[in-house]
Amino acid sequence: MIVIMKLSASQAEVTNVTARIEQWGCQAHISEGEERTIIGVIGNGRPLDRAPLERMAGVERIVPILRPFKLASREFHPKDTVIQLNGVSIGGEQLVVMAGPCAVETREQLLETAEVVKAAGAKVLRGGAYKPRTSPYSFQGLGEEGLRLLAEARDATGLLVVTEVMEPDLVPLISAYADILQIGARSMQNYALLHAVGEAQKPVLLKRGMMSTMEELLMSAEYILSHGNNRVILCERGIRTFESYTRNTLDISAVPLLKQLCHLPVIADPSHGTGKWELVEPVGRAAVAAGADGLMVEVHPHPEQAMSDGAQSLIPERFEALMAHLAPIAAAVGRTL
Amino acid sequence: MIVIMKLSASQAEVTNVTARIEQWGCQAHISEGEERTIIGVIGNGRPLDRAPLERMAGVERIVPILRPFKLASREFHPKDTVIQLNGVSIGGEQLVVMAGPCAVETREQLLETAEVVKAAGAKVLRGGAYKPRTSPYSFQGLGEEGLRLLAEARDATGLLVVTEVMEPDLVPLISAYADILQIGARSMQNYALLHAVGEAQKPVLLKRGMMSTMEELLMSAEYILSHGNNRVILCERGIRTFESYTRNTLDISAVPLLKQLCHLPVIADPSHGTGKWELVEPVGRAAVAAGADGLMVEVHPHPEQAMSDGAQSLIPERFEALMAHLAPIAAAVGRTL
Amino acid sequence: MIVIMKLSASQAEVTNVTARIEQWGCQAHISEGEERTIIGVIGNGRPLDRAPLERMAGVERIVPILRPFKLASREFHPKDTVIQLNGVSIGGEQLVVMAGPCAVETREQLLETAEVVKAAGAKVLRGGAYKPRTSPYSFQGLGEEGLRLLAEARDATGLLVVTEVMEPDLVPLISAYADILQIGARSMQNYALLHAVGEAQKPVLLKRGMMSTMEELLMSAEYILSHGNNRVILCERGIRTFESYTRNTLDISAVPLLKQLCHLPVIADPSHGTGKWELVEPVGRAAVAAGADGLMVEVHPHPEQAMSDGAQSLIPERFEALMAHLAPIAAAVGRTL
Amino acid sequence: MIVIMKLSASQAEVTNVTARIEQWGCQAHISEGEERTIIGVIGNGRPLDRAPLERMAGVERIVPILRPFKLASREFHPKDTVIQLNGVSIGGEQLVVMAGPCAVETREQLLETAEVVKAAGAKVLRGGAYKPRTSPYSFQGLGEEGLRLLAEARDATGLLVVTEVMEPDLVPLISAYADILQIGARSMQNYALLHAVGEAQKPVLLKRGMMSTMEELLMSAEYILSHGNNRVILCERGIRTFESYTRNTLDISAVPLLKQLCHLPVIADPSHGTGKWELVEPVGRAAVAAGADGLMVEVHPHPEQAMSDGAQSLIPERFEALMAHLAPIAAAVGRTL
Repeated sequence: MIVIMKLSASQAEVTNVTARIEQWGCQAHISEGEERTIIGVIGNGRPLDRAPLERMAGVERIVPILRPFKLASREFHPKDTVIQLNGVSIGGEQLVVMAGPCAVETREQLLETAEVVKAAGAKVLRGGAYKPRTSPYSFQGLGEEGLRLLAEARDATGLLVVTEVMEPDLVPLISAYADILQIGARSMQNYALLHAVGEAQKPVLLKRGMMSTMEELLMSAEYILSHGNNRVILCERGIRTFESYTRNTLDISAVPLLKQLCHLPVIADPSHGTGKWELVEPVGRAAVAAGADGLMVEVHPHPEQAMSDGAQSLIPERFEALMAHLAPIAAAVGRTL
Repeated sequence: MIVIMKLSASQAEVTNVTARIEQWGCQAHISEGEERTIIGVIGNGRPLDRAPLERMAGVERIVPILRPFKLASREFHPKDTVIQLNGVSIGGEQLVVMAGPCAVETREQLLETAEVVKAAGAKVLRGGAYKPRTSPYSFQGLGEEGLRLLAEARDATGLLVVTEVMEPDLVPLISAYADILQIGARSMQNYALLHAVGEAQKPVLLKRGMMSTMEELLMSAEYILSHGNNRVILCERGIRTFESYTRNTLDISAVPLLKQLCHLPVIADPSHGTGKWELVEPVGRAAVAAGADGLMVEVHPHPEQAMSDGAQSLIPERFEALMAHLAPIAAAVGRTL
Repeated sequence: MIVIMKLSASQAEVTNVTARIEQWGCQAHISEGEERTIIGVIGNGRPLDRAPLERMAGVERIVPILRPFKLASREFHPKDTVIQLNGVSIGGEQLVVMAGPCAVETREQLLETAEVVKAAGAKVLRGGAYKPRTSPYSFQGLGEEGLRLLAEARDATGLLVVTEVMEPDLVPLISAYADILQIGARSMQNYALLHAVGEAQKPVLLKRGMMSTMEELLMSAEYILSHGNNRVILCERGIRTFESYTRNTLDISAVPLLKQLCHLPVIADPSHGTGKWELVEPVGRAAVAAGADGLMVEVHPHPEQAMSDGAQSLIPERFEALMAHLAPIAAAVGRTL
Repeated sequence: MIVIMKLSASQAEVTNVTARIEQWGCQAHISEGEERTIIGVIGNGRPLDRAPLERMAGVERIVPILRPFKLASREFHPKDTVIQLNGVSIGGEQLVVMAGPCAVETREQLLETAEVVKAAGAKVLRGGAYKPRTSPYSFQGLGEEGLRLLAEARDATGLLVVTEVMEPDLVPLISAYADILQIGARSMQNYALLHAVGEAQKPVLLKRGMMSTMEELLMSAEYILSHGNNRVILCERGIRTFESYTRNTLDISAVPLLKQLCHLPVIADPSHGTGKWELVEPVGRAAVAAGADGLMVEVHPHPEQAMSDGAQSLIPERFEALMAHLAPIAAAVGRTL
């Protein structure tokens, strides 16, 4: 990190700062500029906290130099991480599409959807059994019954199952049913939960918080990795902005930039990223063209009867069309579907 | 809610929508406009989900009419909620200042700070024992040892204690030590946690998420209220914007607007709201002038040694100055300190 | 528009509102809801101002129903607008790529770049002669000398020329040299300028403001259209968000949504939209996959010597690679390049 | 500025960067860190452009060190600028309140409002003669007739007059009528206009753009100052965020922070900053408590008949109440009203 001293900083203040840096076992490297003094901190390999220096007399501000993530960083791990799971490779040449209803509602709904998405080429079935809902009066999910239905759909179709886990105590139960544990956008900084899935034996799909920077997403991945689970999939699902014509603003640049910064697979969720079914296909195509390793898409056989997020779900015919139209885009970027 | 039909909607599509509305036991009220048809949904007292209508053929969009919160709403509960706690009234005429270190670090640090803030007029001691930190490599708090120190500081000073709870399982333990349970900004939509504190026997300080709307804050309060705990204090602590000179943008309008929309006490946190100690006093004065029922302020005897958030902590002398300068502002708006 | 009355509104207040609506020659359509009264305003064909009703006693808020743009709206003009310009069709089946340096710097730089982009398949040469710069100390452009160089490059290559116009007085001069007048992001709501280009005889490339909604972009297009110029091209170039790893957040959903809402051509600018040359190709591919009618891309033969925006400029080899990689994406969405 | 090299940068790349820096007549100061090399650029007094270095091989990113504004900076001009104008001091001990209608509509409306605000203690009359409106179909102002009415109101009351100028060509005309030239939020980066008012002989009220950082606001002030006009007043009027309960989010921290960074007077506009008349008083009190040198407030005798912004205008009685309630807040911060 770099310490920028105030224009008015005294020599004694500079000396105090360098003394503090050396106390930590670091080296202080002083540059006397035309207008102000700048002190580079040359580390000792351990992460440093900027706060103590920030408050010392004569200090104007601190500029961090290193990215704060290491395990997730491509600089320290240049090769792509490819997650192998029951014959499906996530992060490899073939794109992985995860599809299904926002929430598991009934056995019929789920099995019908599973058959449809399987037939169209999806590899993973999504569906919420425990649902985070803004309102306490909204449908909160079927709970364990939903998990049982997901497992039944897996048995019937051979699809892998991904479902959201919202609290640490549920990690063992959900791990017993699901193949991939999903951390939802609102839980991206639920550290107790990140800790718990970091110790689980299942891959984790980590969704970017709607209020989170890419750096924070990578730091949350770092939490999981640092607890020993290195099978993490990142998911861009839109951030919150001032624009109100869409539910969220899908940050398309995050797809290639996360791939550059990090070795983990990156997928995109155009359903939550837009909130409008009419936009799911064009934005899904865009994500693949930008280099995403897959998509997560909401599909519902009867979205006008859905208990949540109906407006962003594709009907089966449109999901089939999406898959058909993705194939040439995948080919154009050297991938298969 | 109101259903706005497309310009091109057919008569049959309008009929289908009204039929659906009536199936729910609601009334449909049709207005044939110059350009398009609008259908008002007159409810039956139960909350309605907009998603099913949103996907019906011929529907352009849905406009919600009612605020989605009820228990928190001043319309249904016009009188201010005042929380009485060991002789302190929160939400009454007297302002309540909560002060202390970001994190509990040592016995000396905590006791020294507690004495200082008590002497200057604070009523509540804040201090984190379990800390949400963006990085897995940062100090995570002292845990139960921190709780014990907080209880010791309470015994020594008579201050009430507020501390953050980050996971449902810790609610009983933290309730055994603290007087007020704090839900941090990153946990504002941790529904399992809201459920747990909703069933606790302690008042809850609910911080606004850094990218949450006021409506979402009130919905999270609604979760707690709907589980039976009606002692909730709202806290504006800054939202995330494009501005980078400050850590967050304290939304000063939220203070009077939350007071207008809701009957719960509203306080402000100018330490997190700005991230800079130089701004804590002017922004703290502003919050009181805008009608806040109190402030939460970080105070540290040696902020240059703090293990977190040193840059936004006041030294004791500056906290005393803040309290001295707040008094005439409080008087100017008809409050006492 | 719809008027939502307060829970506490009296019958007299409702009557006053309906009287006011009828004074305007509109009809008031009253719905007595379970909790509150809602009044639909059925217009007389002229746009209505919401402000007067908003302040009447008993009114809680106003909900607008109609989109405020008409000339730009696809509802009233279902067919795509295709702009024909010297043998180039903008908005048709063939994608149009506009490329060139951020600023015109020297004759050599511009001519070299023009040859390169022409050879790679661009149809339009971009280059700023008058530059909007945040700092008064930055390079402000070559002015009319820059325009002359652009004209010379057009004569040498046959490319069309697009360049930014920053003030109304310069519209005639820039129209004398350029084929397309560009309105930059910072000028999107410079109404005097919109008026001036609305009366010009040249097509206008209108860039979305970095913190403007799609609706505001369409309203700015409406200004130009309402002054008689119906050759307007919209350009998504990234919006400002809290994310700092990229210069702006390119709103990929805006591409298909603007195409759905509006009949005008829509292009994307991945150079400004990302601020990083490494992201220009993947985000440019994404925009084409999402349905953009073209791209605007910064190319500079020596970006490390560029006088502005070097970090987001492609070198010639990378621009050629972009064009080569765009072709199969274009084909995948049924377009040519 | 500081150049951060990539982990993988070669010695030759470092040498190239230092050679480039020295070509500019600057010094390069190399720090070999544990992981990467950092090069400090020690300037020669002229502003440097980061772009050329940003693109050199081996460079990861550039970190600017100096604030890019100088004439506006308090570091270089520690004393407060106080603008004297016909017996009114702006930026001195006494607060200055500017009040009046959003738009000048009629002679009666303007004169009635001017008398009311004068009697309540305002020193400056505001009112728009040329209005920036999002829609081409909205009322655009009375133009020169509005200017004449403002001058008449000044003659009748002795108030100073501030009104918006939207295009460079109108600067002479508006200067002939007004005492202070207002640059509206949408024009904050209209550089031709900043240039024109920088050469005018009138003080300038510069409103922060709704999408602009404090740094950009100060850079726009720098434009005006660098053209020779040093009588600039900054105005915080709310920024755009994701919150939709208010029209804008008034950035209260900007008031004290701009005062710390800059020597110019800083006022706040709680009318545009909130968009709701119910919030104007509490947020206006907050701005004064935070250290604002004054307020700009919309007042309309009949806001339900206003042709723009009626919802955020105070009626005369509420403006009188605001002024009465501001007085003790002003006293509490050592100011007079």
